[in-house]
Amino acid sequence: MSSYIPDPVIKRLPMYYRYLSEKEKENTLFISSTELAQLMGLTASQVRQDVSAFGGEGRQGCGYPVAEMRHHIGKLLGKSKVRTLTVIGMGNLGRALVRYETFSQNSFQIISAFDTNPKKAGIRMGAVTVRLMDELEETMREAPADIAVLTLPASAAQKAAERLYACGVRGFWNYAPVDLHLPQDAAVVSVHLDESLELLGYRLEHNEG
Amino acid sequence: MSSYIPDPVIKRLPMYYRYLSEKEKENTLFISSTELAQLMGLTASQVRQDVSAFGGEGRQGCGYPVAEMRHHIGKLLGKSKVRTLTVIGMGNLGRALVRYETFSQNSFQIISAFDTNPKKAGIRMGAVTVRLMDELEETMREAPADIAVLTLPASAAQKAAERLYACGVRGFWNYAPVDLHLPQDAAVVSVHLDESLELLGYRLEHNEG
Repeated sequence: MSSYIPDPVIKRLPMYYRYLSEKEKENTLFISSTELAQLMGLTASQVRQDVSAFGGEGRQGCGYPVAEMRHHIGKLLGKSKVRTLTVIGMGNLGRALVRYETFSQNSFQIISAFDTNPKKAGIRMGAVTVRLMDELEETMREAPADIAVLTLPASAAQKAAERLYACGVRGFWNYAPVDLHLPQDAAVVSVHLDESLELLGYRLEHNEG
Repeated sequence: MSSYIPDPVIKRLPMYYRYLSEKEKENTLFISSTELAQLMGLTASQVRQDVSAFGGEGRQGCGYPVAEMRHHIGKLLGKSKVRTLTVIGMGNLGRALVRYETFSQNSFQIISAFDTNPKKAGIRMGAVTVRLMDELEETMREAPADIAVLTLPASAAQKAAERLYACGVRGFWNYAPVDLHLPQDAAVVSVHLDESLELLGYRLEHNEG
């Protein structure tokens, strides 16, 4: 499990997990590399390479065992643990994420939410009550979060990330349009919505041209 | 402008655009490949390759002209045009996106929003009034959208995308946890939030291990 898996394969693991979960729900026992490739939008040979890279095993003449492979990927993704989340910034996006139910189905649990605006403090949203940023350190001592969801303006994100890191938070799901600079043992995954939309603008322009 | 630019470079264009915009606001006239590389988290040689791939030009001994290069990338990204957006699905995420102000600053304009729930029809959200999906075809004839933002359950996304395609929509910003199958002249960019969070879970697991 600790062996090296190339980054592009890691990025595809959640998608493998999603499709294998669907197949398991349909009571499919085995799946071929060809079928998996079609679902994933890859070639069969790429699927075989991926599977070999993440340590999955097929059975001669049957294909890949769906439940077993899903379980294996789940372990790689750390799905056996419940990860606790704190949402920092209760703007439109923060409020949407706090109410997003799918996370909890996937072993992620939102346990707190913060904002700098006193008017928002004390308001119940989803399963949590919004607290003021002043209470961050105290709250993290009492109920530590594994992951901070940063839905803050770009100007406030780095400073908030550093405070959270000092509180022991090591996972950062960053929606602020800025790249965070944190020590090496912090794991950062950014979702830059504006850039994603601009990429779509490029593709549209290109297709039309 | 119609020459081939590799996909990884295209994906970095919005980030180049963002940093060059910041530099232009600071009245910086020229920027070196080294400084740009630091901002972007790349090597200087990679920046030089990127710039050469997207057709930017440096000036001997000065570096890259900030305003000129930003303008060039803006043209590549189709920023001279205003793109119209329609949001399909007024759940938590759809409601957040409809109110997200940054898009309009970036030449994207939300002009309509739809839901299947009659209770949501007629409600004003952000700059638009929610309509029923029954009115989709009629609305698209009167006010065509360039891009559909799909914030729908996975089970409804493909069918909605096909209806929108039939209405002439060619850009799809897909938040549904499903891969869309559309004709080649459709441009699709997906934001799979669950997969992004699961990737963070993997990195966290791996860092701890």
